[in-house]
Amino acid sequence: MKKQRGLLINRKNSLLKPIGIFDSGLGGLTVAKEVFRFMPHENVIYFGDTARVPYGNKSKETITRFSTENAIFLKSRGVKLIVVACNTSCSLSLPILKKRLKMPIIGVINPAVKKAVEISKSGRIGVIGTNSTINSKAYDKRLKMLDRKIKVFSKSCPLFVPLAEEGWLDTDITYRTAKMYLDYLKLKNIDTLILACTHYPLLKKIIKKVMGKKVELIDSTSEVARAVKATLKQLGSLNEQKKKPGYQFYVSDEATHFIKVGEKFLGRKISCARKV
Amino acid sequence: MKKQRGLLINRKNSLLKPIGIFDSGLGGLTVAKEVFRFMPHENVIYFGDTARVPYGNKSKETITRFSTENAIFLKSRGVKLIVVACNTSCSLSLPILKKRLKMPIIGVINPAVKKAVEISKSGRIGVIGTNSTINSKAYDKRLKMLDRKIKVFSKSCPLFVPLAEEGWLDTDITYRTAKMYLDYLKLKNIDTLILACTHYPLLKKIIKKVMGKKVELIDSTSEVARAVKATLKQLGSLNEQKKKPGYQFYVSDEATHFIKVGEKFLGRKISCARKV
Repeated sequence: MKKQRGLLINRKNSLLKPIGIFDSGLGGLTVAKEVFRFMPHENVIYFGDTARVPYGNKSKETITRFSTENAIFLKSRGVKLIVVACNTSCSLSLPILKKRLKMPIIGVINPAVKKAVEISKSGRIGVIGTNSTINSKAYDKRLKMLDRKIKVFSKSCPLFVPLAEEGWLDTDITYRTAKMYLDYLKLKNIDTLILACTHYPLLKKIIKKVMGKKVELIDSTSEVARAVKATLKQLGSLNEQKKKPGYQFYVSDEATHFIKVGEKFLGRKISCARKV
Repeated sequence: MKKQRGLLINRKNSLLKPIGIFDSGLGGLTVAKEVFRFMPHENVIYFGDTARVPYGNKSKETITRFSTENAIFLKSRGVKLIVVACNTSCSLSLPILKKRLKMPIIGVINPAVKKAVEISKSGRIGVIGTNSTINSKAYDKRLKMLDRKIKVFSKSCPLFVPLAEEGWLDTDITYRTAKMYLDYLKLKNIDTLILACTHYPLLKKIIKKVMGKKVELIDSTSEVARAVKATLKQLGSLNEQKKKPGYQFYVSDEATHFIKVGEKFLGRKISCARKV
């Protein structure tokens, strides 16, 4: 009886453990937002590596070192599952993280790729992301693994992140920049375009304007939240207690900028972010 | 006699010691280029913090921590003087670095400011740089210290660095971005504009096009090299031996990208850059 009670307490504790999410900066808050929405009772810890952002032009070795440190930090806070919300980290370091951390880890690539293959009729799929993400060919490989016949066309768009961070979401300059990057993909007659960077959904309106109505944009955030929920259910760790959840935010640089811009990404107030 | 010979050897060794230069990335190579030109016999060690670049949107505390680590690295390599080629580091951390390192340290602000005050006729001076540089008001304070009557107008131009790194030095998009940032300074009738970021000289042509011929652009690189030479002379540490100098390059991320882009900044081959 005592043993059974102990097991029950253990299970309850494990349900209450938070979900950990990390990103190179604040872009991953778009994923956090969906996690909050899909699993309204889960406690969440978010870590943004704002002192070393961006990852998009850095090497595999450096990105893997940073990502491992971020994941170890979250593990040390007792999370039950880690979401790697940074496309660059996922493209270059996900298999290594899974091997090193030995705990459930979910990235942003698989959910987006599955959705794209499901939606695309012509089998011609575009991928846009940072230099490191595109050069890694992680999306191309995963798409081909699901369906060998798929044609993948990718293009890195290095100015999209600084444009989004500058808040120039719907300016003529951003439109011209988008045309400069995307005209190549338009020529390739794709019918589906994966936004392989957490900042890009902020530029959706302009990307849509350049690509035209017939091209479906895949923004992986809700797909990732769905995958997290499915995994937790499968592991028996989904927290469905109707209590108000706790959200904690950590950053590696000063919190002021993170809070100010982060609230826009998250669509809700961030009462506190701690520097670690 | 023996003691005197020992002193002579010490002096010769001290002359041969390298000059250390650091920057958040590769922008500081524009300063290195001028140091090579003005002091063709000096050995030089350059360090680019490419794993944590850029510094321009980060906090004073983080920038000071990174800058101190960079300076300590150069000191450990036995340099006789350190040039802080990063405007953001100088704006936020130079006094602290000087206090902590206790060795000759030269920044990029003073030389540029002196030159601007010397050249300006109207006393209306503009400053452009990263968010952190402009918010620090380091240039404003220094200009006012030299001449209280000077009117300073500053503007941060966060997209200039990514545009320069993308290689869009003379495109319509860059011109429109420059107009967006600089029209405010044009309205202020400045006659001198300080380019307070090592990347900005790459966009000189477009900045000139927007500001008009009457506005003098101050690019501090040659002023900095002059200041280094004067300081070494004053300290009796200027190396004028007619030997071929040695140049060493160190980076905190993989060297490939640094070498490829760095050669453009430096205008000469980089045979090797070591990751530390």
